[in-house]
Amino acid sequence: MIELKPIGIIHSPFKDLNGMPIQPAAAAGVKGIVEVFEAYRAGLKDLEGFSHIILLYHFHRSQGFNLNVVPFMDSEPRGLFSTRAPKRPNPIGLSVVRLDKIEGGMLYIQNVDILDGTPLLDIKPYVPEFDAQVEVRTGWLHAARKTVSDRKSDDRFK
Amino acid sequence: MIELKPIGIIHSPFKDLNGMPIQPAAAAGVKGIVEVFEAYRAGLKDLEGFSHIILLYHFHRSQGFNLNVVPFMDSEPRGLFSTRAPKRPNPIGLSVVRLDKIEGGMLYIQNVDILDGTPLLDIKPYVPEFDAQVEVRTGWLHAARKTVSDRKSDDRFK
Repeated sequence: MIELKPIGIIHSPFKDLNGMPIQPAAAAGVKGIVEVFEAYRAGLKDLEGFSHIILLYHFHRSQGFNLNVVPFMDSEPRGLFSTRAPKRPNPIGLSVVRLDKIEGGMLYIQNVDILDGTPLLDIKPYVPEFDAQVEVRTGWLHAARKTVSDRKSDDRFK
Repeated sequence: MIELKPIGIIHSPFKDLNGMPIQPAAAAGVKGIVEVFEAYRAGLKDLEGFSHIILLYHFHRSQGFNLNVVPFMDSEPRGLFSTRAPKRPNPIGLSVVRLDKIEGGMLYIQNVDILDGTPLLDIKPYVPEFDAQVEVRTGWLHAARKTVSDRKSDDRFK
């Protein structure tokens, strides 16, 4: 067993699992604030130099999981690990968001697809040389991914 | 407190924290195998359609953390969250790796920068529309990131 504890809270306009953008790419311009708890704020030094950050967080509203799910972007059941569905054996979410500024332990971010009140687990700098891939195949998502900005969540993963 | 448990084990050529590549970009061609435990294998359906996957894993050899660290790629102390150093309040690692094939619950991967025996926490499909960013600033890493393939780890984060 591995024990984690929140290092902050993510604040966003999304108070309900229904009607959320389903990825940061679909949440262009949506603003939020990451509140980092006081004990961890010294670790934010130098972060403001990065335009984008990776947030890892706890899908705190997800209970249990199914190994086959019908994702928001499809009508077929898919293997869980080929999806970004929130109900996972280890319910950790990952979003790449834009960082506008940091003030007093508050990170002002954009492109937020995260539920209000979500517990923050980690912040990593986004570095294209590490994180961006070219010549990529995207399986079942290939047809659907271009339309992500038109899709919204519903309550199927409640 | 959030409790996680491993869903598999990552096998790699790296038996020691010393001399490892420090990011997947620096581990081009290095092969490894992700062994997914039997109970979770049904969730691998459809994953083979993706050329790249995101692995989340437990930095199981990291004890404790410092909010200021001198990263492998720099000589200055930096705020922890502006680095990818393994000793973090929640020691979760993230690597984007190439997926070659899946056979019997074993994922054959490339570009592996992960220690042998690392506990696997999650697998997500890599999708450029969600995960790749353009027009990015990378702060202190800007000068250093191009040289990542020449750097190796040492034991500073033991």
